[in-house]
Amino acid sequence: MKNFVFHNPTKIVFGRGTIPKIGEEIKNAGIRKMLFLYGGGSIKKNGVYDQVVDSLKKHGIEWVEVSGVKPNPVLSKVHEAVEVAKKEKVEAVLGVGGGSVVDSAKAVAAGALYEGDIWDAFIGKYQIEKALPIFDVLTISATGTEMNGNAVITNEKTKEKYGVSSKALYPKVSIIDPSVQFTLPKEQTVYGAVDAISHILEYYFDGSSPEISNEIAEGTIRTIMKMTERLIEKPDDYEARANLAWSATIALNGTMAVGRRGGEWACHRIEHSLSALYDIAHGAGLAIVFPAWMKYVYRNNPKQFERFAKRIFGLEGEGEELILKGIEAFKNWLKKVGAPVSLKDAGIPEEDIDKIVDNVMLLVEKNLKPKGASLGRIKVLEREDVCEILKLAAK
Amino acid sequence: MKNFVFHNPTKIVFGRGTIPKIGEEIKNAGIRKMLFLYGGGSIKKNGVYDQVVDSLKKHGIEWVEVSGVKPNPVLSKVHEAVEVAKKEKVEAVLGVGGGSVVDSAKAVAAGALYEGDIWDAFIGKYQIEKALPIFDVLTISATGTEMNGNAVITNEKTKEKYGVSSKALYPKVSIIDPSVQFTLPKEQTVYGAVDAISHILEYYFDGSSPEISNEIAEGTIRTIMKMTERLIEKPDDYEARANLAWSATIALNGTMAVGRRGGEWACHRIEHSLSALYDIAHGAGLAIVFPAWMKYVYRNNPKQFERFAKRIFGLEGEGEELILKGIEAFKNWLKKVGAPVSLKDAGIPEEDIDKIVDNVMLLVEKNLKPKGASLGRIKVLEREDVCEILKLAAK
Repeated sequence: MKNFVFHNPTKIVFGRGTIPKIGEEIKNAGIRKMLFLYGGGSIKKNGVYDQVVDSLKKHGIEWVEVSGVKPNPVLSKVHEAVEVAKKEKVEAVLGVGGGSVVDSAKAVAAGALYEGDIWDAFIGKYQIEKALPIFDVLTISATGTEMNGNAVITNEKTKEKYGVSSKALYPKVSIIDPSVQFTLPKEQTVYGAVDAISHILEYYFDGSSPEISNEIAEGTIRTIMKMTERLIEKPDDYEARANLAWSATIALNGTMAVGRRGGEWACHRIEHSLSALYDIAHGAGLAIVFPAWMKYVYRNNPKQFERFAKRIFGLEGEGEELILKGIEAFKNWLKKVGAPVSLKDAGIPEEDIDKIVDNVMLLVEKNLKPKGASLGRIKVLEREDVCEILKLAAK
Repeated sequence: MKNFVFHNPTKIVFGRGTIPKIGEEIKNAGIRKMLFLYGGGSIKKNGVYDQVVDSLKKHGIEWVEVSGVKPNPVLSKVHEAVEVAKKEKVEAVLGVGGGSVVDSAKAVAAGALYEGDIWDAFIGKYQIEKALPIFDVLTISATGTEMNGNAVITNEKTKEKYGVSSKALYPKVSIIDPSVQFTLPKEQTVYGAVDAISHILEYYFDGSSPEISNEIAEGTIRTIMKMTERLIEKPDDYEARANLAWSATIALNGTMAVGRRGGEWACHRIEHSLSALYDIAHGAGLAIVFPAWMKYVYRNNPKQFERFAKRIFGLEGEGEELILKGIEAFKNWLKKVGAPVSLKDAGIPEEDIDKIVDNVMLLVEKNLKPKGASLGRIKVLEREDVCEILKLAAK
């Protein structure tokens, strides 16, 4: 078990009917005026916008709105919102939406207190040490951004999708009402679940194997899989929504990192190139990359891959045969819930692999190397490795 | 899944060799002078005291010492330390030791900012809203106090052992170096493990059954049991110490409470009377009370007791037969690791049961009723119920 620091100061207010608490939370933090960021307007259809606005009014909080944040959120929208935040001298940022909105809110909160272009933080030219206080009302459970210091933004001009991480980016308060997710399209529920499972697996396979973190990882993955299947049958199953929502939060709030080596993250980075280049859903991209990566690297960590097969799918046996059965079972589950498991499924031609690899290697140069990080851990991936993984993912 | 708030601001610094970080953490919080509280001097034998003192000196932090905190920590020692804290105008309290020291540090930190007698907080006459910043170096994994806002103190004059809970009592920073527990007597390791399992079970059986919290509870209990067995064989097994230490922390840091009804806590309350009257170890008392309570109440929550038997002990079957096999398996495990499982094992005569019940009912009146709480949840226990449970625990 590796040494670690666990420190997660975010306050989570969780459950049905909790959205009207947002005004009180913001007021208690001494905020008088804030930026209110949201996406394409689904929050106006499902009543979330009205609940938020009523609560803000009731607690005398002023706000300015910026809307139109897209999935795979883009830098230009962050720039637009930073400008508004600076001009209007807001004291906090409230994001209401899914991971894309909350990640954008984080970038805006940091950008509002930075003289230069906040993209600098994504390419290793600036380490974020301060940000406006961040609040959010989460409407899609997937990325875990509601309880961590991470944000991922796409520079749409350069087709670069990079992440940042800072203690200053932990939300002060996140409100999670799982019932607002009843109306999500099936794909979004599934991709959210795949994203959450992937976060857990990035840690699970990183070459460490602390028993308590293994047990918690396995229990959380089993829960996510079970709840996803229930939600495909019945999207308004509150118990399933709530279990999935909390599982997605703890998948990336530090819980899964305990005693481990920091996670693999190769699949996430390769996926970022897919969604940067093709604007596919992050969860879809992960479903394509993960099984291929597993097949390519399992020899570097066979015991943990055996354990995965046994504990997640109840498979028996040992060695390579068991491992491959486990990977196949995972791929079959992804298919069963409707996720794409190949580039072909997502309409990405195999001929594009070189272009994708170029984009991945650009990320390695511009985002990882400045942090002293490499692509992967149990196997550090070079250009040809990424190429082989994408070939395995082709069909 | 019940609505909940999760907010745990304590910073945990975990692992081998982390104790020398204490000075830096205290300095970073802007503290110049503090009270340094510890127990009977074992920290002077195992090198922990020297590590702490070196670190404090290195960072220019002044301190005054109060030592002699006993297991089942007593109010008179808290009074003594509060007086020192007030007179010396300390800015923080550092507890170095096990749960008794950290709980005392919390009571002192609150007492230092309260005009009256801090015992008022334990009998519903004062709600703790402020306390000096609390730091600790944990040397026994058991109570989980290192990452929660709870403290339990015994008023030795009145034989009352009561708890308080406040947001102001979360430690600012807790340092956990599992390697300092290599030299613990076997009983202390075992009783710590039993205490941690009991915390989880108090939530597990409270009439709720959220899947994610069930999975995490079961995985953590299995880990604790496995690691305890390893440590009986090899007390300096670092991996086992570390897994047990973190499991004990999350057993009572909010993780197990997610989506539940707030926990049962009847066994803990009944046990507090045993350790108040007989000064036995808290973990020993819990091993005596828990199986008896389980036998007495399982009909009020049979599905969860069936699940316990299956998931913790891998038993098969259903209904009452399975439940009773599960309870028996738990009792056998407690025996196997050397815990007492009856009043007789602990040298407490059956004739004392009435006296014990008197003490429990006093706790109900003076500590629970002021909070609007009852003794137990799936079955609210009256005098005669407590009596029956203790009879079941007699031999």
